[in-house]
Amino acid sequence: MTAATAPATFDLLCIGNAIVDVIATCPEDLIANENMIKGDMQLIDSERALHLYDLMRGTVETSGGSAANTAAGFAKLGGPVAFVGKVQSDPLGQVYIDDIERVGVTYPCGKADKGAPTGRSMIFVTPDGERTMNTFLGAAVELTPEDLPQDVIANSRISYLEGYLFDSPTARQACIATAEHAKASGRKTALSLSAFFIAATHRYDFLGMMSEGLVDYVFANAEEARIFAKTDSLDEALDFLTARVPCAIVTTGPKGSVTAEGDQRIVVPATPIDKRVDATGAGDAFAAGYLYGLSQGEPHEACARRGSDMAALVIQQMGPRLS
Amino acid sequence: MTAATAPATFDLLCIGNAIVDVIATCPEDLIANENMIKGDMQLIDSERALHLYDLMRGTVETSGGSAANTAAGFAKLGGPVAFVGKVQSDPLGQVYIDDIERVGVTYPCGKADKGAPTGRSMIFVTPDGERTMNTFLGAAVELTPEDLPQDVIANSRISYLEGYLFDSPTARQACIATAEHAKASGRKTALSLSAFFIAATHRYDFLGMMSEGLVDYVFANAEEARIFAKTDSLDEALDFLTARVPCAIVTTGPKGSVTAEGDQRIVVPATPIDKRVDATGAGDAFAAGYLYGLSQGEPHEACARRGSDMAALVIQQMGPRLS
Repeated sequence: MTAATAPATFDLLCIGNAIVDVIATCPEDLIANENMIKGDMQLIDSERALHLYDLMRGTVETSGGSAANTAAGFAKLGGPVAFVGKVQSDPLGQVYIDDIERVGVTYPCGKADKGAPTGRSMIFVTPDGERTMNTFLGAAVELTPEDLPQDVIANSRISYLEGYLFDSPTARQACIATAEHAKASGRKTALSLSAFFIAATHRYDFLGMMSEGLVDYVFANAEEARIFAKTDSLDEALDFLTARVPCAIVTTGPKGSVTAEGDQRIVVPATPIDKRVDATGAGDAFAAGYLYGLSQGEPHEACARRGSDMAALVIQQMGPRLS
Repeated sequence: MTAATAPATFDLLCIGNAIVDVIATCPEDLIANENMIKGDMQLIDSERALHLYDLMRGTVETSGGSAANTAAGFAKLGGPVAFVGKVQSDPLGQVYIDDIERVGVTYPCGKADKGAPTGRSMIFVTPDGERTMNTFLGAAVELTPEDLPQDVIANSRISYLEGYLFDSPTARQACIATAEHAKASGRKTALSLSAFFIAATHRYDFLGMMSEGLVDYVFANAEEARIFAKTDSLDEALDFLTARVPCAIVTTGPKGSVTAEGDQRIVVPATPIDKRVDATGAGDAFAAGYLYGLSQGEPHEACARRGSDMAALVIQQMGPRLS
């Protein structure tokens, strides 16, 4: 790591799928009439996305996505943060940008002028309170290295990459280009393994980036860490990770988290909660708190406590963002 | 590397795209009538592949593909060799299997019973002798880890992976699974970088495999080696490779080849030729000769000479296979 020559403009840059969360109530019979499976999440194509969106009335539309949630949490804590993702020049694209900037996150990219419509996760809430999701990734997975704001990467203390992006061949290249540029600029890169299927499918891409010194921090939950390390043992997974990255931060659900750095293991319990309302976004919120602590130069134990506190807040409310 | 417990059934297992080379003469006007660009190579879809195939009369059909060419060359030298690739249960699939077995290569896989038709590269030869190619990858890129004959991998001294396969998400997983199983069985893996765009696009997958000790030999031409190492200098590229793999074999066109192992650089000139007829398959033939030398326990210099001899023979005839 070479020392950065200039002070950073942003403490954090998050790169991820830009997906608008579109929520609306709907009559019970719409679910069956549209051949949805109640309570399920389905990936849908462009045509169906536009059709279902037309059916929604009185929608609440917010800027979603895993890394975007982390960016929003980081902004909530008061840290200067930017988010890079791809949206289309359509009304939902503008909704995305307006909303993420409203929560205090800088959006340093333009809108695409060709390609798929803006990605959206449409959540139909039936009178019984159940949520049925239909997700269209759209423009989000059309992110390419050409979309990256090079100066923002060079001027961000840490670039945080959402592992989900590796499922798109071009977005994967954008993540790699970001990590390479961050390293060349004397900055750090954090990688979220995002999901167990991502950790398994893109294992060697991640290992290659690690072996070339492109990953300074890896964030994972215990299941992702174990599948990545090909072991059933969390201890073995932590040893596997510390042999390959300077610092691994693994969340262990209600038990809290373990930060692993060399031979050191720092266990921090979860922050107690009164009532679990909705665990959506708990991992993203944890990362936000942890990264904020890092940006303040705090020791790992304090970072992990901030992460647990943020996760506890998100778990006790509906949705992935703190209101 | 653990020692293999049993003697190998095969000295070499090649894994690659199974593409039937379909060659036929055609009238001059067919090229324009079918909107082909004379002398060009185009990737085409299933529908167009079936349409163009219907137009061909008096075809010569042979089992092609880069790693398959290497397998055929290896068999020509007398080595026991198997080839794994994916073909469909259609007439061309049977043509592929019959032809590759005819040249002495064991085909240990079945035929797919669903999915795309067998891949084919259709070569239209106009009366002036010019060749216009239309390639449909078809079933070849639908190779998955489930298609792999595990016992053949465990019983092959070296598994040779065609880098082109990494362009397909499932075939890429098949390559990785092969290298993992070969290592677990105490066998060796060789990787061909295949093309400069493959070396660039799948760089971190390859680096990850290398960092985990899954690549014992890497084959590349000088251009691929330089792009992989991100340098204009061949010497720097060789240093980059030897820091990551036990042995790198880099062909340098008319200059011959360099084998790099640790600090050692073994330069072997190209075998002189009378007349360059068609360089197609020269790299595949070189790999066949080199790998055959390795299977005989010969020193690198002798392996490289065998490689150069095989390449020289192929360059002085039409097509990628020795007749």
